[in-house]
Amino acid sequence: MPEKIGFVGVGTMGRPMAHNLLKAGFAVAVCPHTNLSPVRELESAGATVVADPKAVAAASQVVITCLPNAPQVEEALFGSDGLMAGAVPGTILVDSSTISPAAVRSFAARVADASCTLLDAPVSGGEGGAIAGTLTFMVGGDRAALEGVRPVLEAMGQRIYHIGESGMGAVVKLCNNMMAAINLVGACEAFTMGAKAGVDPALMAEVVMTSSGGSNAVAGSLTKKVLPGHYEPGFMLKLMCKDLHLALDACQELGVPAFAGSTAGQVMDLVRNLGKGDLDFTVIATLYEEAAGVKIGGKK
Amino acid sequence: MPEKIGFVGVGTMGRPMAHNLLKAGFAVAVCPHTNLSPVRELESAGATVVADPKAVAAASQVVITCLPNAPQVEEALFGSDGLMAGAVPGTILVDSSTISPAAVRSFAARVADASCTLLDAPVSGGEGGAIAGTLTFMVGGDRAALEGVRPVLEAMGQRIYHIGESGMGAVVKLCNNMMAAINLVGACEAFTMGAKAGVDPALMAEVVMTSSGGSNAVAGSLTKKVLPGHYEPGFMLKLMCKDLHLALDACQELGVPAFAGSTAGQVMDLVRNLGKGDLDFTVIATLYEEAAGVKIGGKK
Amino acid sequence: MPEKIGFVGVGTMGRPMAHNLLKAGFAVAVCPHTNLSPVRELESAGATVVADPKAVAAASQVVITCLPNAPQVEEALFGSDGLMAGAVPGTILVDSSTISPAAVRSFAARVADASCTLLDAPVSGGEGGAIAGTLTFMVGGDRAALEGVRPVLEAMGQRIYHIGESGMGAVVKLCNNMMAAINLVGACEAFTMGAKAGVDPALMAEVVMTSSGGSNAVAGSLTKKVLPGHYEPGFMLKLMCKDLHLALDACQELGVPAFAGSTAGQVMDLVRNLGKGDLDFTVIATLYEEAAGVKIGGKK
Amino acid sequence: MPEKIGFVGVGTMGRPMAHNLLKAGFAVAVCPHTNLSPVRELESAGATVVADPKAVAAASQVVITCLPNAPQVEEALFGSDGLMAGAVPGTILVDSSTISPAAVRSFAARVADASCTLLDAPVSGGEGGAIAGTLTFMVGGDRAALEGVRPVLEAMGQRIYHIGESGMGAVVKLCNNMMAAINLVGACEAFTMGAKAGVDPALMAEVVMTSSGGSNAVAGSLTKKVLPGHYEPGFMLKLMCKDLHLALDACQELGVPAFAGSTAGQVMDLVRNLGKGDLDFTVIATLYEEAAGVKIGGKK
Repeated sequence: MPEKIGFVGVGTMGRPMAHNLLKAGFAVAVCPHTNLSPVRELESAGATVVADPKAVAAASQVVITCLPNAPQVEEALFGSDGLMAGAVPGTILVDSSTISPAAVRSFAARVADASCTLLDAPVSGGEGGAIAGTLTFMVGGDRAALEGVRPVLEAMGQRIYHIGESGMGAVVKLCNNMMAAINLVGACEAFTMGAKAGVDPALMAEVVMTSSGGSNAVAGSLTKKVLPGHYEPGFMLKLMCKDLHLALDACQELGVPAFAGSTAGQVMDLVRNLGKGDLDFTVIATLYEEAAGVKIGGKK
Repeated sequence: MPEKIGFVGVGTMGRPMAHNLLKAGFAVAVCPHTNLSPVRELESAGATVVADPKAVAAASQVVITCLPNAPQVEEALFGSDGLMAGAVPGTILVDSSTISPAAVRSFAARVADASCTLLDAPVSGGEGGAIAGTLTFMVGGDRAALEGVRPVLEAMGQRIYHIGESGMGAVVKLCNNMMAAINLVGACEAFTMGAKAGVDPALMAEVVMTSSGGSNAVAGSLTKKVLPGHYEPGFMLKLMCKDLHLALDACQELGVPAFAGSTAGQVMDLVRNLGKGDLDFTVIATLYEEAAGVKIGGKK
Repeated sequence: MPEKIGFVGVGTMGRPMAHNLLKAGFAVAVCPHTNLSPVRELESAGATVVADPKAVAAASQVVITCLPNAPQVEEALFGSDGLMAGAVPGTILVDSSTISPAAVRSFAARVADASCTLLDAPVSGGEGGAIAGTLTFMVGGDRAALEGVRPVLEAMGQRIYHIGESGMGAVVKLCNNMMAAINLVGACEAFTMGAKAGVDPALMAEVVMTSSGGSNAVAGSLTKKVLPGHYEPGFMLKLMCKDLHLALDACQELGVPAFAGSTAGQVMDLVRNLGKGDLDFTVIATLYEEAAGVKIGGKK
Repeated sequence: MPEKIGFVGVGTMGRPMAHNLLKAGFAVAVCPHTNLSPVRELESAGATVVADPKAVAAASQVVITCLPNAPQVEEALFGSDGLMAGAVPGTILVDSSTISPAAVRSFAARVADASCTLLDAPVSGGEGGAIAGTLTFMVGGDRAALEGVRPVLEAMGQRIYHIGESGMGAVVKLCNNMMAAINLVGACEAFTMGAKAGVDPALMAEVVMTSSGGSNAVAGSLTKKVLPGHYEPGFMLKLMCKDLHLALDACQELGVPAFAGSTAGQVMDLVRNLGKGDLDFTVIATLYEEAAGVKIGGKK
């Protein structure tokens, strides 16, 4: 079982994930990034701080990356001070970023050329799940490599799924987020209609959860964000827009119709373009509230 | 507590609902309709068969109606042999059909003119829930009238919600079905993308149910209908199209944007128009399968 | 040839149309409506003012109606002081309002019961065409009746088309307006993209008019309203929304897919709901300008 | 004035364009491509055939490229036997392909590094316009360079517009094609509705062309392709899908809403995915015809 774990990308999600690795007894190596404070905080909690990703890899058997987009993952892996410059053959790299399946496959091939293994392992569960250690991991790539790092992932998550070959973890993550976006857009429409007709939104949420219209978007996003009317992220709208466009690009490449996906993308993009991209993605509810002249939430 | 219950509309949903009333010990009166066999069957089970809705009302303290659309409800209530021709003042009418909130309010006012009470009480749970007696009732109208008939509804359902004034039960039902339709369209898009990329749909369903993209459309419709590839109804596509258009009309009247709702409506209408209106509404999955050249389900 | 013409509905369109009848030498009878000033103005120009539609019909061989919606047409035709109360058998009624084909057919049947004839004859050309007498009439109903009133219509319009039986004039009008709406929404998207990329919108309009993307929406609506940035009506957004929904209802009844039509409807409704329903329908351009942070027009 | 012109990409559009250069008295150099027959044909008409793009550039003052997509343009320009390997400083390259503005700008910068000039000059007018020499050129890049090659372009087209800096020709072409696609989708919906209601489509086309709903999509695509029901290309659906996605990507990058554009993209993609990508893009009409159970065209 691997004992020395590296972590690159200790942001909203990565910071609590790295803390959980420390709590589980792993040795954790991190390096300074744009924001120094989580690195210092992890150092206080027992992590070793080294100079750069290259040094992180040199100090680790397994390295987790958790970054906002494909160019940053590419730089972390293949930059001059990147992980692959320091990794010994046999190192397993676990990328928990949400990037395109095509990017995953391309990176995995380059990592394999250096006799290392890249797993795509995006997560679901949000900041709350990252703190509680209850994330779901959707893993693509070599099954044996996954079994080797399973105890590491179990320190951070509750459910570890092997989906299939390289890139398939990314596929399922994009599918999931596309549904989350569509279901939220639908919920905003339905709950605005209900509210305008005089129905109490909290009661309606309770009723639909026991009916065919229920969804995690209602039980989670709508109930926890829209009803109280608090839109601090959470999951920023601009990141949801990015994920949706990765999903729509994949639909386009695969020849899959995406009527609802592209509609949800247009609604999300519109609200982002109107200046709300840094708020939680549930802020799209305000477009509906403004158009209909009614509040779903935030009344108290 | 009322003991004599009438029932008009003993079709897919109404037949098992009436059976559950008999099982619970109520006296049930029914009348012949388009299809005689459920009437005979209920007679064998203990129901009294009378000539027409007028006679049903004359024999009952409470009457349940469960019909496909507003014109049929209007005929059953106000036709020359209709319920209101036989109802004594104080009779409570419970309409479990899915019709527009505007139709409900109009019918309720006419019923009130005759010193009776109409509750709109559409249900969720499908044929399965009707048989098992586990339906959810979403009730609009006078709260005291609902309390009076609650034991009757509890013989057929597990959850009885008072939503608000007349028509609000119908509002929540339409909101619920609009979300069910949108969520299913989104699920078809995501699962087709996943299947085309090589992901096992059953595994993907399991993963997303623990993630932000999960919904009752995935846990129910997709898993129970699309994965096995069996599209006998269930809930016919043409009825879902009808409900969606009632919901979209309500959005239009109330000034509520319905980008996702109208997109789902277009997809559902397209498949209905292509000749599949009498199959279960989940048959829209086949449009995606055909376009993408891949099967989500039905392989075994 | 008929010489005595009645006119009911002397608003934005009807007033100049009635003036053109007077200029062409017809005797014209009008009656007071919500707004008295156009009636007085027409009286000064030679029209006879009578008490109500009933009196208008009594004074006329042919009556033109030009009203905002079906309930107003119904009241003008069949109200207690309505046209049919005063019309002698053989009177020809020409309705230039934009209402649903189903409403047309229903009204035409009731008019025929009184041995009169109703033609649906909606117009295209806007206020400018009404003033210049260059309208296009799209006529449904009895061809011989149309030939009888053709000289009357030619006093107001340049092109008089007999489309087919009762209601088909309304069908073509709704088809035309649905395309006008879709083409304008498309033009707003394309011109906003061009403007954001730095292209001069007036130059782009010139180029596309000689290319496959050109349309009357670009040559007319966009060039005349959006480029100068003046949104006084013209054709009010709320009326375009009404026409679009009549068109979408007709698509729904006829089983015709309306992906683009319903998308245009959602965009138009959204801007109307945001408080701009009384401006010209081209004001939807401002939604695109605001979202993209760029002006297509109105700069100088 | 340049006298020696090279041409790379003598397909559906390029072949007649090169013929027109020969007819106008220019010396034209071409090289073998995937299909030899147009090269032989042009040789018979007076063109010089050389080995590869490098040799074409070596023999020319100005080179026109007309290729299906960006990777082919990149190969033709920068491949080992590409144009830039043979071009002397001062050569002007005119790319009439439809590629993304970003690709144009990137290629133009690399061409400028070699002291040559790249103009983006996509065309509108189709194969008919290419044969007749009546194309519209939308040109981005250095204005002086355009003036230098204007006589060359005038041998192939009727209208030569300088839109702005590098990439802006491509922008206007994508805007134009996005509108052409949206307007055609709208026309298919409206004409299917009309046909289903019994209206003669040819008559409706005549009427709407004088009304607000008219467009080049109705006057051209619909009248010339859909009414006769002949879908041999012309402009292949799969190419229109490609152009639409370039346009939608540009909207996404620029932050421009594209509700109608993405809807049109979904309809076009659906029909392409159903196996009709090699037919003319107007074949999307058949989806509407099939769904509505009516023919717009092709009856006789």
